[in-house]
Formats: sequence, structure tokens, C-alpha cells
Amino acid sequence: MSDIRFYHLEAPISANTAASAGNAVIVVGDPDCLIDDVSAIYDARSTHISFVRDANHLEALDSIEAGMCFCPPEAASAVKALGARVVAVTKQPEYAFGKAAELLITPRELDPQLLLIASDAKLAKGVKISPNVCIGAKAVIGENTCIGPGAIIGPGCVIGQNCVIGAGVVLSFALVGDGVDIRPGAVIGEAGLGIINAADGNYSRTHYGIVQLGDNVRIGANSTVDRAVFGTTLIGARTKIDNLVQIAHNVSIGTDCVLASLVGIAGSAKLGDGVLLGGRAGIIDHRTIGDQARIGAAAVVTKDVAAGETWGGHPARPLRRYLREQIALETLAKRKGGANDNAK
Amino acid sequence: MSDIRFYHLEAPISANTAASAGNAVIVVGDPDCLIDDVSAIYDARSTHISFVRDANHLEALDSIEAGMCFCPPEAASAVKALGARVVAVTKQPEYAFGKAAELLITPRELDPQLLLIASDAKLAKGVKISPNVCIGAKAVIGENTCIGPGAIIGPGCVIGQNCVIGAGVVLSFALVGDGVDIRPGAVIGEAGLGIINAADGNYSRTHYGIVQLGDNVRIGANSTVDRAVFGTTLIGARTKIDNLVQIAHNVSIGTDCVLASLVGIAGSAKLGDGVLLGGRAGIIDHRTIGDQARIGAAAVVTKDVAAGETWGGHPARPLRRYLREQIALETLAKRKGGANDNAK
Amino acid sequence: MSDIRFYHLEAPISANTAASAGNAVIVVGDPDCLIDDVSAIYDARSTHISFVRDANHLEALDSIEAGMCFCPPEAASAVKALGARVVAVTKQPEYAFGKAAELLITPRELDPQLLLIASDAKLAKGVKISPNVCIGAKAVIGENTCIGPGAIIGPGCVIGQNCVIGAGVVLSFALVGDGVDIRPGAVIGEAGLGIINAADGNYSRTHYGIVQLGDNVRIGANSTVDRAVFGTTLIGARTKIDNLVQIAHNVSIGTDCVLASLVGIAGSAKLGDGVLLGGRAGIIDHRTIGDQARIGAAAVVTKDVAAGETWGGHPARPLRRYLREQIALETLAKRKGGANDNAK
Repeated sequence: MSDIRFYHLEAPISANTAASAGNAVIVVGDPDCLIDDVSAIYDARSTHISFVRDANHLEALDSIEAGMCFCPPEAASAVKALGARVVAVTKQPEYAFGKAAELLITPRELDPQLLLIASDAKLAKGVKISPNVCIGAKAVIGENTCIGPGAIIGPGCVIGQNCVIGAGVVLSFALVGDGVDIRPGAVIGEAGLGIINAADGNYSRTHYGIVQLGDNVRIGANSTVDRAVFGTTLIGARTKIDNLVQIAHNVSIGTDCVLASLVGIAGSAKLGDGVLLGGRAGIIDHRTIGDQARIGAAAVVTKDVAAGETWGGHPARPLRRYLREQIALETLAKRKGGANDNAK
Repeated sequence: MSDIRFYHLEAPISANTAASAGNAVIVVGDPDCLIDDVSAIYDARSTHISFVRDANHLEALDSIEAGMCFCPPEAASAVKALGARVVAVTKQPEYAFGKAAELLITPRELDPQLLLIASDAKLAKGVKISPNVCIGAKAVIGENTCIGPGAIIGPGCVIGQNCVIGAGVVLSFALVGDGVDIRPGAVIGEAGLGIINAADGNYSRTHYGIVQLGDNVRIGANSTVDRAVFGTTLIGARTKIDNLVQIAHNVSIGTDCVLASLVGIAGSAKLGDGVLLGGRAGIIDHRTIGDQARIGAAAVVTKDVAAGETWGGHPARPLRRYLREQIALETLAKRKGGANDNAK
Repeated sequence: MSDIRFYHLEAPISANTAASAGNAVIVVGDPDCLIDDVSAIYDARSTHISFVRDANHLEALDSIEAGMCFCPPEAASAVKALGARVVAVTKQPEYAFGKAAELLITPRELDPQLLLIASDAKLAKGVKISPNVCIGAKAVIGENTCIGPGAIIGPGCVIGQNCVIGAGVVLSFALVGDGVDIRPGAVIGEAGLGIINAADGNYSRTHYGIVQLGDNVRIGANSTVDRAVFGTTLIGARTKIDNLVQIAHNVSIGTDCVLASLVGIAGSAKLGDGVLLGGRAGIIDHRTIGDQARIGAAAVVTKDVAAGETWGGHPARPLRRYLREQIALETLAKRKGGANDNAK
């Protein structure tokens, strides 16, 4: 369900209109039924449109609540069986969905004609605004929060009390707790890298979600946090993030985590509470890192890591195994080297 | 040949003047012949100066068209034999070239006294300019393009229609197609890291080239794309680049590529069409990646990769070999571990 | 000893007041003795407060000059024996120190009410200021230095002659030499990522130090250099740093080094002169890299590297050993693969 602080919802459209927009064909259901919002297939309600990319995408689903679902022809019967009211088939379901969604929902972007601070932005007492700050329509800034020079706060953003938003920060589609510290140059709330391979080449996926930062979160200089495709990219209270860190769309991070510089967390990865990531560690998409897990510097995590474990290496593996393998390799190379082993 | 939209060419100078500027000695050719531009040795024409760094630098050349070439003394006869009209010798050919080039060519930098939008910039109808935008002399912005708050567009830049240039983007020395999407904080067109080791320490190499972005390219937040030393850093149509990605000088990227976050492409690397690079993958300088190749997350590519191949690892190798080696190492370490193997 | 250009020192406080602020208990010394500044335990003088985190933190010390030291109860007798005049115990010494320090020292942040250029900033002749630049109180800018659009220069900063400060650069708590080139979007002088694990979760460590850049240093676009916790983050003359590089607090880098893109140097690491770091190389905290050492692309340095050595790999090891191990692993995997070895 779209957050109307960040997205403008147009009047409802018929399933038929939605299907036409996406060049899809309705094979199940009433073409006249009305659609009023967009969602991920996991969360879609009876008046939402959504899509199923392929058979794999269906696997985790017990039922589909979506009012209307775009899917490839071969998935149509399964989608119907799971409960979708209207099924529209096309070889490019996500692309078709995106075209239909354009008729329903518009992101509230910063108005270029804006005179720096929107007249309907709400600034609590004690808010400090530096020169050249832009604040979008209906943004809300809490008491004693300080906005640095040239920072941009998008329409609808809500920022808590006692926050420091650094110079040149660009914040949009975001709900920010109290005491949050965002260092200069960080970019929060942009659409992430999502690619739709359409017949005529790559398209960028439209994003319909938001970012939420818990109380006392710290985001380092020039770091980037993308908003969710649907739903929320979440960073829990007191999590501290260093410079030049990338947090992709739909990532969920618990409380009291520490992410050192140049860390990258790919889409939909989930970190528990108290997780430590060394510098330049990376987590690939959709992986889960348990509470209090520790990931070594530059580790490349391609599997789930259980709570409390320590992993390292490329690819990352439990630390003890990683160290044992390093020793085995060193020993092997020395043995093979023979007489030359001691040569420097 | 320098693009005069971005570089101001002074009056021609004599070979003698050029040699003097660089403390070099003319050993072949007419000191009075005129020089009017600068080029890489591979592209130089009869009125250009260029340089040869060392014997390796010469190897790929069948002929030298350059009017004047700086080179180390030991390369002089080879340079002459390849056709250079004037040969000037010095122990520091690139440094000497740079000194001579300063007399010939000046980058058109943004005028600090500029009142935000240059009076001779051309803005097509429907262009939207946000607050605090700077646009340099003779820049051209196409219809319906939107420039975000605080973005900087350098002199001579050409931006197509329907582009979105995000807040705080710094764009210079760049030709940008239609429908290009540059997210906030990206820096496009700066001189890259080029080092000249002169007798008195490191100098930065001057850059004489540009950046070109094809239609519907997407550049992520806080990513950086350096302009070429000579010629063009090129990103092909519909290539989508994530946040915090570095594209070095003289890189050439084809169409419909996808580069995930924290990827780094070093100088003069060439990517074909439809290449996929996982998060934090790196390509070292001068390597070639064939069409449709796939490079895994955090892979470190030190060799050429043929079209259609999938590589991973550090250093990167074909995926199947990489996986086989990981298994072999794991097995080896378990065997060596003996009784302790099963210990956690 | 705090640099009063960047930090405002309040009136001295008594040891008793300091201890109360941090909920610590004085177990040694005169509660009425006066404290007037903060320091790292290694540098603290007789009127400074400092702290000892744990027993390991004590090991490198022959004596403690600090007037007052916060420490855990079990370290109190050792701290006394090393010479601290006043010893205050608490389970959270760094947290307690931070609370006391708040009474003594305040960073001079940019005044949000500032009208772009502070009236008491000193601009030498020939300084060029682009639109939307902010310059803080008492900053000093040398002759012919050019400040790009939207750049922010914090209070007290000193910038030499002939520097180029790019668009959108944020510079604070920094002393900058002559001829320094800082590319757009770089953020210099922010507090680094320092975490205090207090009873109620993570806190960010306050920073009391500065950044110093030598003559002709180059910092690439969107790179970040954090100021020291105490003392100085130092980058030596003619060192050239590429885009998207992270230099953490208290790092010390010599002269004529070259750091390629996406390099990360963790806290308190020390690099000698003429060190080369390939793209995406990382150095973990507190390591030392000797003069003229060369670190390969994407290497992960976890040990000290002696002068002149070349290391590569993950984890990094001497290049020869790294290559030998790669060959041994390849051979092993082929042998194990048996009949399938030649399969592609």
C-alpha cells in the first residue's frame, strides 16, 4: 500500500485499462473491476495490481490476494489457482505492470520551481536551516534539528528531533527518527538499481517504497541508501554506518549494527541486531545475517550467516574454516615449490 | 583532436617553443614547424604534439602521424623511423608534453564569477531548472530535461531531451544523450587519476578528453565517471550503473550493460554490450570484457574475458574453475585437519 | 592538545565535576584539581583528561602524564602506577570521558545562520569564490585559490595558495597546503565511525582532532577523509588519491603515494612515502605499510608490509607467495577433477 506522503494516487482504473497500458491480455476475471494501488505480490490486496515474474517468483506464495496480477502465459493457471481475481498475461509482466502503475501512482518529486522552502513544510521550534537548503512540500522537521548548507529534503519527508542533516545531503521518500546523524553528501531515498529486460533493452524499475531510519542512526559521508521497490528499506535504531556505504532497496537492518566503510548490502538482504561488518564487506541479495554475527573486512557473503557466527573470506565462510583453508593452501604451495620454497 | 566546446585552443606554436617549454631537445625535424593541437600517439595528426612514454608504449604502433613527438632518448630512432616529423628527447616525455600542451590548450572551466546560469547557455522549452543550479557558457540543455537543486553543468556540455540530472550532480566535459538519468551526487567528467613521476615527485596528468553518455543511460548516486586523457570515455545506450561506481578515464562500455554498486572499472578497460557486473566487481586497466559476459560479485578481473563467459573470484577466473578450486581447497583443508576436522 | 581554531575550550573544570558527568568514581587523587583539555592517553598532559579502555590499551604505555584518567575498575591500580594524578573508575570509561569532555570542549561547527561568507573569514587576493559557497568564521584562504560552487569551508580552516576546491566539497577541521586539488563532492574532516558500546546501545565517538593535507595533494571526487579522534589525520605532499576513496580517522600517509579508486584505509593505519595502492585495495586498522611498498588491486592487507615489498590477494601476502598459491590451487583442482578436468 503506497505511502501517500510520498506518492500521489490517481483515480482508480479498470483492470481493462491497466491491461491495455501494459499490452497484456486478461485471461481470467472481470475487466471492469477497479484497481487503486500497486504492491509486491506478497503484500497485494484485493484492489491492488501486482505481477509475477516467473515460476520461481510464485514458489514462496500460498495465496495471492492481488486484485489483478500480470504474469507470463505459462504462469496464468497457477496465479489463478492462488486466488488472483484478474489475471493478465504478457511476456513482460514487470514491464506491463510498470506501464499500468504509471496511470495510478506518481512519486512526489521536488518541484523545480520551488523557492527553497515549501510554504507548507512544517518546521518545529529550534529547527536550524542553513543557506541553500531546499525543503519539499509537506515535509515535517522536528525540534532542534539542524539542516546543513545545500541539503535537499524531499516532499513528505518526516525528520525527528535533534537530528543533524549534513551539508549537501539529499533525502527523499524517507521517515527519519530522533537524533539521527547524516553526514555530508549522503543520498537517502533514491530509486535503486532495478533492471527490467524488455524487448528493446534495459529499463529502470520504478520504485514505490520508502526508507525508514530509526532513532540515533548514523549514516556516513557520501553513503547511499535506496528506497524500497515496494515497502520499506529499514535501518534500526542506533545502527552506525560509515562513509561510502551502499544500502540497496528493501534491505532491512536491525538495531545497534556497525557497518564500516565501503560496505555494500545488496537488495532485500536482512541483518539482525548487533551485526558487525568490517570495511568493504559485501552481502549479496536476499541473504540473512543473524543477530550479533560478525563479518570480516572485505568478506563476500553469499550464504546466510547464523546468529553469533564470525565469517570471513571471498567467498565468506566461517572464520575457523577460512583460516584452516588459508593454512592448507600455504602448506600445499610450499610443498609443491620444493627446493625453491624458501626463495623470497 | 580536441573538442573545442570543452577546450580553448591557443594560437599555434613552433616545435621549438614546445620543446623549450618541456626542457626537451629536438633531435629530428624542423624546429619551426607549427603545432596546433594535442593527441594520444595513436591518433595524432601531422600538426599535433604527442609523446611516447617508453619502448613498450611504441610496440602497438605501425606508424606515427604526429607532427611532433616527445620521447626518451633511447626511443628517438624508432620514433623517427615510424614517421614522426619532429622528435624531441627528454627523460620525462609525458611531463615535457604536458608543459608544451599548456601553451596550446586550456580547459574551459566554470567561471567562478558566473551568476548561476550563463547568458549564452541554451535551454530548450520545457527545461526545468531547480534552485542554485550553475550552468556554464554555451551549454545546451534539451527539451523537458530537469536539473536538480545545486547541480553544476560545465561550459560546453550538451544534454539531450527528457533527462533527469539529480541534486548536486557535477557534470563537465560531457555530451549526454536523451532520457539519461543521473542520480544525486554523481560526478561526471572530472580528470581521472593519472600520475606523472617527475624528478621532483608526483604530478597529476592533464586530461584533454571528454565523456559521452548514450541515450537512456542511468548513473547512480555518488558515482564517478572520469573524462578521457585523450578522446572519449564512453557509456553506451541503456547501460544502467548503480551507486558508488567508479568509471575511470578512457573506459568504453557498450549498450545495455548493468553495473551493480561499488563496481570499479580502471582506465581504458573495454566492456562489450550486455555485460553484467555484480556488486563490487572490479576490472583492472586495459582489459576487455566481451559481449554478454557476466562477472560475479566482488570478482577481481585481471585478464580479458571472452563474450558470454561467466567469471568470479579473486583473482577472477571462469566460474566453473573457480567453484572447483573452492571445493578442492575445502577438501584439502578437511583432510589436513584430520581428527579436528569436525570441530566447529 | 586541542586546536583552538577548530575547538572552543570552556573554562577548566574540577576532576570531581568531570567524574560526575561520566558517572565515574574517583579512587585516586584530588577531586578539586583542575582539568582544561582532552587528549589520547598517549599524549595527555597534566591538565588533560583521558581514558584507558581496557588492559590491552595500557600495554604500550610506559607512563601516563594525564591529569585525570577514566578507566575500568580492574585497571585502576595500573593506571595509578603509571602516573595518572586522578583516576576515575567506571565500567564505561570512554563513554564517561565523552560526557566529561562535553563540558570542556565544543567543536566549532558552521553557523546555520551564516550568510554564506563569514565576515571574519580572510580571503587573500586573487581568491575566486563561486556561487553558493559557505565559508565559516575565521577561515583563511590563500592567494589565487578557487572555491567551486556550493563548496563548504568550515570555521577555522586554513587553505593555502593556488588550491582548487571542487564543487560541493565539504571541508572542515582541516589545514590544507598549497596547490591542493580537491575534486567535487569530496568530504574532508568529518568525524569518523567510532563506536562506544554503552549499556543502552551504540554511541558515536566524539572526535577532537583535525585533518592536514600537504602541498599538492590531490583528493578525488566523492572521496572521504575523516579527522582524527585526537591529533591529526595526515596526508603527505604530492600524494594523489582517486575517486571514492575512504581515509579513516588518524590515518597517516606519507609523500608521493598513489591511491587508486575505491581504496579504503582503516583507522590509524600508517603508510610511508611513495606507496602505491591498486584500485579497491584495503588496509585494516593500525597496520603499517613501508616506503615504496606496492599493494595490488583489491588486496586486503591485514598485516604490516615492509618497505619496498609487493603484496596482493585476499588476505594480502607477498606477491610471489600469492602467485605460487594460486598455481598450487589450480593444479590441485585439476588433479582432483580427474576425467572432467578438461570439460569447460
